[in-house]
Amino acid sequence: MNDAEYMRLALALAEQGRGWTAPNPMVGAVIVKDGAVIGQGWHERYGEPHAERNALASCTADPAGATMYVTLEPCCHHGKQPPCVDAILASGIRRVVIGSADPNPLVAGKGVAILRSHGVEVTKNVLRQECDALNKIFFHYITTGRPFVSMKYAMTMDGKIAAYTGASKWVTGETARRHVQQQRHRFRGIMVGVGTVLADDPLLTCRMENGRNPVRIICDTHLRTPPQAQVVTTADQIPTILATCCTDPERQAVYRMAGCQVLCLNEENGHVDLRQLMERLGREQIDSILLEGGGTLNWAALECGIVQQVQAYIAPKLFGGRDAKTPVEGVGVPAPTNAFRLKNSRLERLGEDLLIESEVEYPCSQES
Amino acid sequence: MNDAEYMRLALALAEQGRGWTAPNPMVGAVIVKDGAVIGQGWHERYGEPHAERNALASCTADPAGATMYVTLEPCCHHGKQPPCVDAILASGIRRVVIGSADPNPLVAGKGVAILRSHGVEVTKNVLRQECDALNKIFFHYITTGRPFVSMKYAMTMDGKIAAYTGASKWVTGETARRHVQQQRHRFRGIMVGVGTVLADDPLLTCRMENGRNPVRIICDTHLRTPPQAQVVTTADQIPTILATCCTDPERQAVYRMAGCQVLCLNEENGHVDLRQLMERLGREQIDSILLEGGGTLNWAALECGIVQQVQAYIAPKLFGGRDAKTPVEGVGVPAPTNAFRLKNSRLERLGEDLLIESEVEYPCSQES
Repeated sequence: MNDAEYMRLALALAEQGRGWTAPNPMVGAVIVKDGAVIGQGWHERYGEPHAERNALASCTADPAGATMYVTLEPCCHHGKQPPCVDAILASGIRRVVIGSADPNPLVAGKGVAILRSHGVEVTKNVLRQECDALNKIFFHYITTGRPFVSMKYAMTMDGKIAAYTGASKWVTGETARRHVQQQRHRFRGIMVGVGTVLADDPLLTCRMENGRNPVRIICDTHLRTPPQAQVVTTADQIPTILATCCTDPERQAVYRMAGCQVLCLNEENGHVDLRQLMERLGREQIDSILLEGGGTLNWAALECGIVQQVQAYIAPKLFGGRDAKTPVEGVGVPAPTNAFRLKNSRLERLGEDLLIESEVEYPCSQES
Repeated sequence: MNDAEYMRLALALAEQGRGWTAPNPMVGAVIVKDGAVIGQGWHERYGEPHAERNALASCTADPAGATMYVTLEPCCHHGKQPPCVDAILASGIRRVVIGSADPNPLVAGKGVAILRSHGVEVTKNVLRQECDALNKIFFHYITTGRPFVSMKYAMTMDGKIAAYTGASKWVTGETARRHVQQQRHRFRGIMVGVGTVLADDPLLTCRMENGRNPVRIICDTHLRTPPQAQVVTTADQIPTILATCCTDPERQAVYRMAGCQVLCLNEENGHVDLRQLMERLGREQIDSILLEGGGTLNWAALECGIVQQVQAYIAPKLFGGRDAKTPVEGVGVPAPTNAFRLKNSRLERLGEDLLIESEVEYPCSQES
């Protein structure tokens, strides 16, 4: 096996932490000596040991003189865990092969420099693209301090998210709907507008076995969420945040008593300032948000530049309907040249449905 | 090479007739003797010799004792050309391998029976699915007498065919737009509503080198097409059909004088009876129609069951807009269970855009 093949193994290990490491990155490590894998590990859960230490602890032979493959540059600072470079140097590892550089520009390259100054051979950028992609959420969060937002919607082949009556159960099939539950596990937060709460009274939980519930974020400019809504009555068990412009302490108190966190924000174009909301959520360690908004919230989010990714589930159906809802509404752009452009689209068939996952390409000035 | 491989060669030959054989099928034939291809041919153009005769005429050795691979069951009746089974029997071919059966239920199997009764060995259904798919238009036309209709539209990832202002140049990129021109060459007719003529004054020609212009069909219930519209002023060179409910001979005369054909049809739900129109166009040997309608015509066409295929070109862009047009409008279905379902979707990347081509699955009662 060559460097890329061992790195692919490290990537597969890293993947096992998905959903549990936030706001830390997913990392995998493999230790190879004389052509045999003698240790492997991954960062399993936030606050627990890093991949490098797990791999060293698992070694079936002395790692002295071995090569370590690790998907992300080893850390050199004290956080919840001691620096990994110290452990690597102590172990006698002779060569370290790295996928992604540390995305924190203040730290990037320091881990590598320390290893090299101690005579360890370092090879960088092996499967860098794959390693970067694995942690796109972490990289966005660590460099901006704001959550990575993925706008998710399910639509028909003629662009409808519901029939003209509002009926939307179901647009896509079971496989696609199961895939959405996985996303709820993977994203730290889930965000909807108050319109969705009023229309569907959803729970917004993760209905996946051993899944983790995302923090529920309701954009509710005027505090119209009914106190008996499921997101409120379950707020003592599942974290719920109401983002509002309503400053009336008495009206807020109803929700706080039920266990909701109420974030009071500026008003912008008639709704809560979404950029300010992202700053606040970032400070609460929410590194990622699955945006399951209706067309109005989706447009507002796009317009203010907080969306990084679009996940469009497309069903092989046609609803028709002049008045049927579409995934992004609001005012819209005046001409095709003003469109929000998407890039790096990835296609996946899910049963009879299709998932298109794309990155939003903001002009540099708007980059969030 | 085995039977399937020779049949694949015959399929590739057949493909070369695309756009020129209508309303005949595309057919390819390969003659193999002692493991060598000694003849090949395809049906090149409507009215000219069939694939079997072209293959026999091209033989570089005596075909006696050889095997013929042909994508469609050889004909046994006199049309514009003498029956192919006669030519095959006269040539001394000893074995015939067939892809598709003759789709005409009154004729299917007769060619095979005649060959077998004369001692020719016949193998059927080799690459049948591929051979059937090649001629889906022909098969539909020959069994129903009505044209095969493909609803084509270009939309953004949020289901818009134009910005809210109506601006739609361009939704997709160059590669996708070139692909549309190929479709205009392949389909015998192109159909739009009068709304499109009023808004865009299009030519609806095929702008592909050596391409063939489709017959232009304008659904114009009340004869609102301006006499100075490009489709009218060029009607003396490119066939143009106006489908209308207006029976006033004087108003029709303007268009007839310009060279348009005016079809007078029944009114159904406030617009021309599209099923009746399909019957009439079928009788005029129009075997296929590319429907480039707006949302209103597309819905009417779907609702009355005349659409066989959907070609959705999807651009990696978002327009947004509550009032932006979508590909299928009209009233729409009341609930997801009433949706028009699509099947056998085929995906193709065209530059940065995506083409999804699917068959419309009508309940049996509605099958057209």
